[in-house]
Amino acid sequence: MADASRIGVVGATGAVGTVTLQVLRERGYENVRAFASARSAGRQLGELTVEEATPEALAAGDLDLCLFSVGTAASRELVPHAVRGGAVAIDKSSAYRLQEGIPLVVPEVNGERALEHDGIIANPNCCTIPLTMALKPLHEAAGLARVRVSTYQSVSGAGAQRMEELRATGPAETDIAMDWDFDGDESDEESKLRSETRKILELPELPVSATCVRVPVMVGHAEAVWLETEEALSAASARELLGRASGVRVHEFPTTHDAVGTDDVLVGRVRRDPTVENGLVLFVVCDNLRKGAALNAIQIAELVLARRVVTA
Amino acid sequence: MADASRIGVVGATGAVGTVTLQVLRERGYENVRAFASARSAGRQLGELTVEEATPEALAAGDLDLCLFSVGTAASRELVPHAVRGGAVAIDKSSAYRLQEGIPLVVPEVNGERALEHDGIIANPNCCTIPLTMALKPLHEAAGLARVRVSTYQSVSGAGAQRMEELRATGPAETDIAMDWDFDGDESDEESKLRSETRKILELPELPVSATCVRVPVMVGHAEAVWLETEEALSAASARELLGRASGVRVHEFPTTHDAVGTDDVLVGRVRRDPTVENGLVLFVVCDNLRKGAALNAIQIAELVLARRVVTA
Repeated sequence: MADASRIGVVGATGAVGTVTLQVLRERGYENVRAFASARSAGRQLGELTVEEATPEALAAGDLDLCLFSVGTAASRELVPHAVRGGAVAIDKSSAYRLQEGIPLVVPEVNGERALEHDGIIANPNCCTIPLTMALKPLHEAAGLARVRVSTYQSVSGAGAQRMEELRATGPAETDIAMDWDFDGDESDEESKLRSETRKILELPELPVSATCVRVPVMVGHAEAVWLETEEALSAASARELLGRASGVRVHEFPTTHDAVGTDDVLVGRVRRDPTVENGLVLFVVCDNLRKGAALNAIQIAELVLARRVVTA
Repeated sequence: MADASRIGVVGATGAVGTVTLQVLRERGYENVRAFASARSAGRQLGELTVEEATPEALAAGDLDLCLFSVGTAASRELVPHAVRGGAVAIDKSSAYRLQEGIPLVVPEVNGERALEHDGIIANPNCCTIPLTMALKPLHEAAGLARVRVSTYQSVSGAGAQRMEELRATGPAETDIAMDWDFDGDESDEESKLRSETRKILELPELPVSATCVRVPVMVGHAEAVWLETEEALSAASARELLGRASGVRVHEFPTTHDAVGTDDVLVGRVRRDPTVENGLVLFVVCDNLRKGAALNAIQIAELVLARRVVTA
């Protein structure tokens, strides 16, 4: 039974960790432990007492699965200990996403890759997940030629502290931001979106150009997408393909409020890009804490757990 | 002297009207009258008493220039009366923008067209103005082939009431929106952006695809732009051309806060679009109430006034 699995949530007090615990509860997992830094250890999260995420605790051998939503540096440090202890680690940081041999998984897009892990499975960036879910069915039908995307990313993607800051900001003072690290003329968020999309879709040369922008919304990421296909694909056919895609819901004018709390990726504004021959325009929205992070990681976990049952 | 001109501001109590009065004051105009609907007539705006914008008042013949920032229907009704009274009408609604024979003017882009008016000059949409200012120098250098743009438009673009609504909204409840009218698969805002850009740049076939989105920011519109040119143009050359363009300031990571209160259009993130041969990516921000509306209209007025002095 899935709910007998021993699951550790590391980074349990953060924006994504909190939603991870919530989605695990919703899905009936009862054998869950919450881990965080020493600062949060001892804190009560509902019925769970937060434990300190020490190498020893994670390597103790009493976890089947360990879901990490901590920073990249902390993931690099802690994930190997969980794996050493026999857990399968599902890591939401960017630490392992592009590492060769480590699967980077969106269950509806490349779920079969989850089973090729060697202890670690990486969960993609919160913008990559909805983007690849919208692109996959269109690629299968007509072949992707290139993708341009501009994002409208909520502050929860930057963590619980930024959510507090937005709560404290008067609506008159809100601003957009590009609060990522820049290497050359691209932010790391923009280059992640390209590299991860290529890895997940297994299109290592796919041309992708992204402009990532933070907007003063609490939860929910949106993306304006222009894509070109190798073969002609009408907007009506694209809408039909998206309507049949698992985890995708066609919603004509999706906003972040429409997406918050839902598991689906909402895809709307599906129309022809009149500037090129085989161009389409989309608007993609999802709950970045759920499908963009916590839910996707738990769906990966369920692929692993399902396999364990079969092979047991 | 410019400051002796008799200037009427119609819609003086609205979001754009308020800024129009402010910019007129900043620029030394003293002979200004404020007009609005019957509901606002008698209200005091600083030293000005709001007069009712009746056809008779506007046609009375005692105005040289009349700046309209009212809805499209009100503009259609009132503008002809001001013209009948001998004023040059500069209209900020979409009523006359695409009408043949009526100039649609961004002074830095096609200022010479302002003098071809027959009583009415149209002021473009708040997104078209910064977009054409960024595109013009690049078009002159390398020829525009196509443009894709996604917008981040502040609520002040939707009027004073929407600003009040955002002030009353808790930061946790903010959302993005597409609060325009839709005709087929495009909003009227998106089709305006295409038609007006074509008219101003005098490129009637220019392929333009836009996705317009409202974000919960009070003032300041941003645009993520992908453009392709006929001839090669490096990002460095584009940055140099933009740096020399009148009214444009190159600002690497412009946000709405950077733009508020400034007259310049800020253009940043100038880089190659790696998905095509002659592609460039830009991020454009401006104060939608100033250069996006009030200031641009006053700059048009100044072209008209300068001509009057010359021909007097």
